[in-house]
Amino acid sequence: MAEVTTREKEEESSCKHNPLSPQSARDLVASVDVFLFDCDGVIWKGDKLIEGVPQALQSLRSMGKKLVFVTNNSTKSRRQYAKKFLALGIDVSEDEIFSSSFAAAMFLKLNNFPHGKKVYVVGEEGILEELEFAGFIGLGGPEDGKRNIVLKSGFQFEYDKSVGAVIVGLDKYINYYKLQYATLCIRENPGCLFIATNRDATGNLTESQEWPGAGCIVAAVCGSTQKEPILVGKPSTFMMKFLVERFQIDTSKMCMVGDRLDTDILFGKNSGCKTLLVLSGCTSLPALQDPSNNIYPDYYTSNVSDVVELSKL
Amino acid sequence: MAEVTTREKEEESSCKHNPLSPQSARDLVASVDVFLFDCDGVIWKGDKLIEGVPQALQSLRSMGKKLVFVTNNSTKSRRQYAKKFLALGIDVSEDEIFSSSFAAAMFLKLNNFPHGKKVYVVGEEGILEELEFAGFIGLGGPEDGKRNIVLKSGFQFEYDKSVGAVIVGLDKYINYYKLQYATLCIRENPGCLFIATNRDATGNLTESQEWPGAGCIVAAVCGSTQKEPILVGKPSTFMMKFLVERFQIDTSKMCMVGDRLDTDILFGKNSGCKTLLVLSGCTSLPALQDPSNNIYPDYYTSNVSDVVELSKL
Repeated sequence: MAEVTTREKEEESSCKHNPLSPQSARDLVASVDVFLFDCDGVIWKGDKLIEGVPQALQSLRSMGKKLVFVTNNSTKSRRQYAKKFLALGIDVSEDEIFSSSFAAAMFLKLNNFPHGKKVYVVGEEGILEELEFAGFIGLGGPEDGKRNIVLKSGFQFEYDKSVGAVIVGLDKYINYYKLQYATLCIRENPGCLFIATNRDATGNLTESQEWPGAGCIVAAVCGSTQKEPILVGKPSTFMMKFLVERFQIDTSKMCMVGDRLDTDILFGKNSGCKTLLVLSGCTSLPALQDPSNNIYPDYYTSNVSDVVELSKL
Repeated sequence: MAEVTTREKEEESSCKHNPLSPQSARDLVASVDVFLFDCDGVIWKGDKLIEGVPQALQSLRSMGKKLVFVTNNSTKSRRQYAKKFLALGIDVSEDEIFSSSFAAAMFLKLNNFPHGKKVYVVGEEGILEELEFAGFIGLGGPEDGKRNIVLKSGFQFEYDKSVGAVIVGLDKYINYYKLQYATLCIRENPGCLFIATNRDATGNLTESQEWPGAGCIVAAVCGSTQKEPILVGKPSTFMMKFLVERFQIDTSKMCMVGDRLDTDILFGKNSGCKTLLVLSGCTSLPALQDPSNNIYPDYYTSNVSDVVELSKL
């Protein structure tokens, strides 16, 4: 009896963790029209391309597959991302990029955010640029990175009462001034929205190390306001609405390829896509197989290039 | 039937919210040997004394009551707090002060933290000073407040592998460098402790405004590490162990006087003390009576001085 239980457990376990095989790679390529790729840890790490990725993307394009790059990294706008791709030798158009900075601006647009209201940004240039493209007035961001606070008697922190939304993303120039500004707007300005680009705990800002992600900065604002944000990046399905509308393709014909279980894979699963975990980023095989994990991709493999290489075998 | 229900609700409600009366003030003074006071919002706001407080403290002392100041504010050490009291014209000895900076150092001492290990501080001078008094080696704090990060290819963030504990408290000089340092120690150094002085969402850093509290900074580190800290300040009962041992008085003979429901009043209740909420700080009467609140002090009143004034009526 004990033996059966062990075998059952092994079967259950192996069923949850399927390495991509030549057969499943061929099935995947045949059944998927749109490949959605996360960027950090999938296409590149920091400023270094992951081996074999450009060739794999080129092969998929030549097979007629649509490619879309869905990134939670809000530090760049779509325009800035297209430049980064080009600098790394990959030809990607702005229309193929869905960043959480763009998602934040689109959320305001779709929700008819009044153009007379302003948006305070705890984050970097990408969010401010997407706000500008969408016709909104953004405050804060990098400009407030060097502000200091002098806490003397009678000091009154001034903030703009016309701020109707605060957008929080990764901010490498986070300081107490910005935290107080965001906190006062969310707590004191009636109806002020609190929007998080994403809540990734960490990210591969350099190729050799992980760094605190937007989840760190967002948590700080949750900590001071005791409020929860509206999430527009992965794993929320907000960006998927755009994708489905743009490509007019059912999500069952899409495959989300990512390196994070709690954002990429969950986003894919929440949306009804096929899912492929690549181990080239922040998730290791032991982490995938750890009993505490309860998010399982359809398949896992070491690197994006395996999709093409395995399907040729 | 509906009428009865309404009356029952009213009775239940009034039972939960008892304003301090002349009779209850006399009972309180008669039955309590040790008054525990929170400081920010109770004794002072920023650098301004709250009206009538020095006289009230003097009166309680002259009645033979012991006074203890239990503060979650970790930016000062006990020595620095005694100086602040003196500067405001109140004579308080270091032994009467229990700050969360002191509690953090005492936690390490009681848990036999190895003296060869170091402690990284995301916080201010008070924590570093208490660590030094307790014989531990602290790193970080104000010194790291001006550090910048240049994220270039190949950059490796260096951190001390002998850090065995990270203490996080209020830090008005919070930056990305400190967040990465703390995150790496907690994630990478085997067995590294993650200690929070407290988790107050906000605090009265100036007399006219609330500012993000330690809860904001602690949440950021929780967000990047995805770990929960050991809490040594209120409402955890860690500080109470010291108090009971020091004064050899049963907690039923103590009264916790504070302005925060989720720290001060909860701390008092968790420890078996009597509790008095003063409305001179961050909690308003509507907030106390809000249906979403489920923490009720034994009594509430506007100001510490009421305890003495009412008991004379």
